[in-house]
Amino acid sequence: MKTLEVDLGHRAYPIHIGSGLLPLPDLIRPHLEGRNVMVVTNETVGPLYLARQMQALAGYDTATVVLPDGEEHKTLETMGRIITALLTRRFDRQCTLVALGGGVVGDITGFAAACYQRGVNYIQVPTTLLAQVDSSVGGKTAVNHPLGKNMIGAFHQPRCVVADTDTLATLPDREYRAGLAEVIKYGLIRDPEFFLWIEEHLGDLLARDPVAQTQAIERSCRNKAEIVAADERETGPRALLNLGHTFGHAIETGLGYGVWLHGEAVAAGMCLAARLSARLGWLDGTAVERIESLVRRAGLPVRAPAALSAAEMRDLMAVDKKVRGGALRLVLLEDMGKAIVTRGYDAAALDLTLAECRAAR
Amino acid sequence: MKTLEVDLGHRAYPIHIGSGLLPLPDLIRPHLEGRNVMVVTNETVGPLYLARQMQALAGYDTATVVLPDGEEHKTLETMGRIITALLTRRFDRQCTLVALGGGVVGDITGFAAACYQRGVNYIQVPTTLLAQVDSSVGGKTAVNHPLGKNMIGAFHQPRCVVADTDTLATLPDREYRAGLAEVIKYGLIRDPEFFLWIEEHLGDLLARDPVAQTQAIERSCRNKAEIVAADERETGPRALLNLGHTFGHAIETGLGYGVWLHGEAVAAGMCLAARLSARLGWLDGTAVERIESLVRRAGLPVRAPAALSAAEMRDLMAVDKKVRGGALRLVLLEDMGKAIVTRGYDAAALDLTLAECRAAR
Repeated sequence: MKTLEVDLGHRAYPIHIGSGLLPLPDLIRPHLEGRNVMVVTNETVGPLYLARQMQALAGYDTATVVLPDGEEHKTLETMGRIITALLTRRFDRQCTLVALGGGVVGDITGFAAACYQRGVNYIQVPTTLLAQVDSSVGGKTAVNHPLGKNMIGAFHQPRCVVADTDTLATLPDREYRAGLAEVIKYGLIRDPEFFLWIEEHLGDLLARDPVAQTQAIERSCRNKAEIVAADERETGPRALLNLGHTFGHAIETGLGYGVWLHGEAVAAGMCLAARLSARLGWLDGTAVERIESLVRRAGLPVRAPAALSAAEMRDLMAVDKKVRGGALRLVLLEDMGKAIVTRGYDAAALDLTLAECRAAR
Repeated sequence: MKTLEVDLGHRAYPIHIGSGLLPLPDLIRPHLEGRNVMVVTNETVGPLYLARQMQALAGYDTATVVLPDGEEHKTLETMGRIITALLTRRFDRQCTLVALGGGVVGDITGFAAACYQRGVNYIQVPTTLLAQVDSSVGGKTAVNHPLGKNMIGAFHQPRCVVADTDTLATLPDREYRAGLAEVIKYGLIRDPEFFLWIEEHLGDLLARDPVAQTQAIERSCRNKAEIVAADERETGPRALLNLGHTFGHAIETGLGYGVWLHGEAVAAGMCLAARLSARLGWLDGTAVERIESLVRRAGLPVRAPAALSAAEMRDLMAVDKKVRGGALRLVLLEDMGKAIVTRGYDAAALDLTLAECRAAR
């Protein structure tokens, strides 16, 4: 087992990564304040891993909420269901929520924990690659709104993250590949050495080699933890973690939540960001080729879907949390492994990129 | 105009109290970050004061949400309506929400501001006595759940509070009296001198004498600001502000939100707390008499409603944010002007008090 720490002073917390962690009581119990624990999972993950999770909670007063699976259920209404379950069981302010599942379960559960009685503790137990390398770490919680992704939420840090790599064994191939998008992201935004490592080890990762998996998760979490520790509330560098996300959120919202997986949309978004960066003269053609080639090898899209026009994309992108005073800031690449947040691009360059980077119908 | 400050370090903010403040741009503008301002009000307050508020915002890109009036609309769904309005107008993270109305408008708007894009600024412009002396100050935001009041919310401080006493002129008598409950509360929990002052000046307050009103609001806000500055997140003394509220919330939830006004329920709750304190030997009969007499003179109930049995009340009280490890802590009176939070009462004493303190059918 590897353990990293997210250094946030008195709210610092550990990330445990390894095999066979789910049933271990010693990882979770130090972070439980009271006796009441509500495990939130979904109908896919629950049957596979809930029993194992419950072993770690033996002796506690536990309850379970099983949500439907899918991004389209990441809504205010679903969050309300968790609150209803907590109130029905009369769980008090000392209760702890455990998010057992992927990014959707983690984001909704974290937001419910942020709001219930104005804030209770929660623990992230991510079971997808995407959640293990990205969404479970850093305290961003949210639900979607039909008009925009992650528009209703809170910053609320978990008490602990337990990433059991065994859970990746049952992850469908499509979801596993979607998780690789966020792994590639860390290489692109700030860790060129890691990008090289991914290029070399993508075959091992796709073959789900446990050693390569653990290395990729650890390195990703280390990058994320450093950024979060430096800028918890995203007033600065944390926005770099959104490489590909403004394009990606537009795709997800535009197609309807759940049509493309989040990681798929981010993968295409990173390629669009790279193309725009190249158009601005910041990145050469070779670099764009390397990025698109890696994304393609990971089985991920390098183009926006044909179903969305360039105009629709641009319109959807205007609803983004990085908009300031009406101007959309984008995360672009100054170089391989060096992202910046900027409004220093012209609208025409963005439009041309959007027009050019769409899949053929 | 009087100005107090809520001393919360870099999140400190002013409370302005006085006549004719609504249209003044200078009070609000220093606290607006961007150009986008969303004024949230309700169908009662809007027609009376929205135009005056808008004078202060001339030149800004403003929009308005008009909510239905009443505690029964303080729900997650109503909060969602504000988010929809913000997204429809594409307001960004630099936008500001203005809560123009009573406690319900303030609580929902504050919660929407806490959640929109994970947190934007808001300003409280309370137009009821209750909101001016209590709910607009201190950053507690929330919506109700059918199973419990204020169960979904956040701590999120406003940037500024503007209490224009002119708005009290149109406040219906019943709501005005409900506000007096929270004024009396400050006297009871920590300011015995103020309690005496209220006893002496209740006639002036009921006659809506502006000088007495301003004094009562200022002294109430001073008490509240001191408590909030000492304990923003209610880990300790802030819970004293809940005198009468555990009983009161049970009444509100049990009868259905909006049947009794919040202040009415709190008034009865304070009398029940006093009765229980007397039963425990902490308060003498004279003190209880003084409290009930003042509450009665203010035109407020001193008993729980006949429609709720003692057992129902006790059951509803068990869903309270002050429950710790299954035990309900109550705010009780050690003396006139001295409240404590305690679980040092026996269940039988509580049951007897609940049985005794119900209105005759």
